[in-house]
Amino acid sequence: MLESVRRLLRMGAAPNLLNLLQKQHPADLARVFSELNDRDCHSVFNILVERNGKLAVEALSELGPEQGAGLLADRPADDIARLVQEIPSDDAAALIDNLPKELSASVLELIRAKPGGGVSELLDYEDKTAGRLMNPNVFALPEDLTAGEAITAIQTARDVEMVFYLYVVDQRRHLVGVTSLRRLLLVAPDTPLKRIMTSELYSARVDTDQEEVAQRVASYNLLAIPVVDPENKLVGVITVDDVIDILKDEATEDVFRLAGVSAEDGVLTAPRESLKRRMPWLLVNLVTAFGAAWVVSRFEATITQVVALSFLMPIVAGMGGNAATQTLAVIVRGIALGDLTWSNARQALVKEALVGLGNGCALGIVATLGAWALTGDWTLGAILGAAMVINMFIAAVAGTLIPLGLRAANVDPALASSVFITTLTDVFGFLSFLGLATIFLRFLHMAPTP
Amino acid sequence: MLESVRRLLRMGAAPNLLNLLQKQHPADLARVFSELNDRDCHSVFNILVERNGKLAVEALSELGPEQGAGLLADRPADDIARLVQEIPSDDAAALIDNLPKELSASVLELIRAKPGGGVSELLDYEDKTAGRLMNPNVFALPEDLTAGEAITAIQTARDVEMVFYLYVVDQRRHLVGVTSLRRLLLVAPDTPLKRIMTSELYSARVDTDQEEVAQRVASYNLLAIPVVDPENKLVGVITVDDVIDILKDEATEDVFRLAGVSAEDGVLTAPRESLKRRMPWLLVNLVTAFGAAWVVSRFEATITQVVALSFLMPIVAGMGGNAATQTLAVIVRGIALGDLTWSNARQALVKEALVGLGNGCALGIVATLGAWALTGDWTLGAILGAAMVINMFIAAVAGTLIPLGLRAANVDPALASSVFITTLTDVFGFLSFLGLATIFLRFLHMAPTP
Repeated sequence: MLESVRRLLRMGAAPNLLNLLQKQHPADLARVFSELNDRDCHSVFNILVERNGKLAVEALSELGPEQGAGLLADRPADDIARLVQEIPSDDAAALIDNLPKELSASVLELIRAKPGGGVSELLDYEDKTAGRLMNPNVFALPEDLTAGEAITAIQTARDVEMVFYLYVVDQRRHLVGVTSLRRLLLVAPDTPLKRIMTSELYSARVDTDQEEVAQRVASYNLLAIPVVDPENKLVGVITVDDVIDILKDEATEDVFRLAGVSAEDGVLTAPRESLKRRMPWLLVNLVTAFGAAWVVSRFEATITQVVALSFLMPIVAGMGGNAATQTLAVIVRGIALGDLTWSNARQALVKEALVGLGNGCALGIVATLGAWALTGDWTLGAILGAAMVINMFIAAVAGTLIPLGLRAANVDPALASSVFITTLTDVFGFLSFLGLATIFLRFLHMAPTP
Repeated sequence: MLESVRRLLRMGAAPNLLNLLQKQHPADLARVFSELNDRDCHSVFNILVERNGKLAVEALSELGPEQGAGLLADRPADDIARLVQEIPSDDAAALIDNLPKELSASVLELIRAKPGGGVSELLDYEDKTAGRLMNPNVFALPEDLTAGEAITAIQTARDVEMVFYLYVVDQRRHLVGVTSLRRLLLVAPDTPLKRIMTSELYSARVDTDQEEVAQRVASYNLLAIPVVDPENKLVGVITVDDVIDILKDEATEDVFRLAGVSAEDGVLTAPRESLKRRMPWLLVNLVTAFGAAWVVSRFEATITQVVALSFLMPIVAGMGGNAATQTLAVIVRGIALGDLTWSNARQALVKEALVGLGNGCALGIVATLGAWALTGDWTLGAILGAAMVINMFIAAVAGTLIPLGLRAANVDPALASSVFITTLTDVFGFLSFLGLATIFLRFLHMAPTP
């Protein structure tokens, strides 16, 4: 497919290219856009947008608001305003929000001038809330209809995004219940809607955080969730496909934060931007690494006498760091998925401590043997083993307590934990190993005087 | 809620407890189960299962098959066989699959004895395929019906999981199209189904990998996907709530694998199990750490003359490791989400190399200053800075190429990359720093002879 697009583009065969593109699902077009180089991508988009504006903008929407807005940005404002009205207003709002500031202001002004649509209203809600995310074009049935009248209402409604949940509202548009098309068909046509609706239903408020919305939809296996304003009036709906996008983004955020990358970074982010986003975390790490180096420098006299200590020292720190990363991943993901709560935190701590001790002892023995093989000094090996047990125990305990502590202090546990823990396992690794070596110095093989 | 459950349990007020439990959504009950200690959890489950077996098993299903099977495991096989038939057969199959081997065999035998249900058939498909995941209880309409007959068929069908997509099959149950309840209502009752169905539709085969199923449902914003056998006969359906569970699991797997944890590990996994799952990775790391220690030992003569090298040496290795982890997170997630492909890999490599060089230069200058402050030796500082530039460049390039290479070799890039990269940044960190120091040894401040 990608090859055909490239070939037709090189041949300048616009009609054939258009033919091919029009047969694709917007999601597949988005994939084509993301794999073409910048110039080709703009050319293909321009060919498509002239003939099938709706499909072109749908593809942009699938591409994600950031990249999608990039492709729109070199078009005039009135052109953009016309195009975005072809897609659901939540998707349109996301695209407009990612345009350059001035352009997005002029587009919004143009859209506001026309009645309906609701795109500009969505942008009044805060980022990452249900209000920003919802589709305001929600279909609702008045509660005083009968089942038969409801079916007629559905038959005559145009352009509604989904009708698998039928929300029921009172005269002032307060959300009062939900029913389904199938249930309407199972009762006599004169049955009042009130009798067949469920009045206990899950909803989100416009200011509910998008993560919470996603959790709710995922936990209760919903296909959509209605969004209400503070007075419980139905103002929109969020469908499960938007929830999937949120869950994917949150997962990426967790992976990135554990690795010290800001979540806006990606494979094709401009190098300058990536640099700006990654450097702060590296700088913090550099400072703490110098702290650890200072700790080592306090043992200068010991190292001078037994140089082999300097070969083995990074092993203790490194293995502590590795064990801590394992614990951290389990704890942070446990918090994110809701598996780890305050009531089972103690159980988790005991477990991690046991695992840390177990791994420390087993690997400590291996390390003792390794150090003996490398240096021929049994005592040095034993000291390495002992230091590893200490440091891996500390790693396990800190790897559990630090993210929990950060969580309690309302700081994202994935973000800050790695820095604290790397520092801790470095410092305690060096301290325990070089400290023990200093205490047992007279039992170690001394370096020959140079 | 949790507090009330605990209180009622302590008071032995089973009827009140039951009353409270029966009002909850299965997902909320699952949360209660996961927060109670083992003994309380079993008590609550036992109270509930006697009176409302269906709700009890639904809650188990929400709890996840592993933990859910744990709660079932101390009941007799015929009891379990009866209970699991209350829930959809895909969920039942997952629970049975996680029971102890012998028990699961007897439960399956009991279920096989009864006709229908399809639980045991599901377990014939391979793990992590569409066949294992699907619900075989799929509602389908014969293609020769009219719209009116189709509505009647829906009205008389019992117990179908979902009817928002209506799949259409021919006489031999080959999948030929899809339509919707709403579309049935919009046409005259005598319209043939063939005229209002869409014959281009997305489906999965029983042997399609579950990850691919999830990607397809997510990309095309589907609410469900029909599953067909190799002859294109409709055999089941996978709904979007199952897809959400897969996406969550895959994200957890990515986080865990990057950290060197097998994906079956969790906050409350038994310590013995966790130990077994984490030790292999630590052992591999220990071996490679000794490799790095051996590299350092080759520079014994240099370190003996300038002990300060041993303080600073871990900084070079550590910062290389940190930078590599950042690159790795971006690349691995890019592969998982489909953003990184073969056609844009070169662009990603150039970008990462530039970011590595940029970070290396900026942080190298800071490191030069830091080393001077710590040791008073400008030359040593300059060597540290230069080694950091080299190692961070290597980290960036390796952090991009290694996961891509593993991907090409069909090895999970998240799993093996960290080990390779830690080794590489350690070895090259020590090599570049100590190598440069050896070359410029005569310009460095020597340690006083002890």
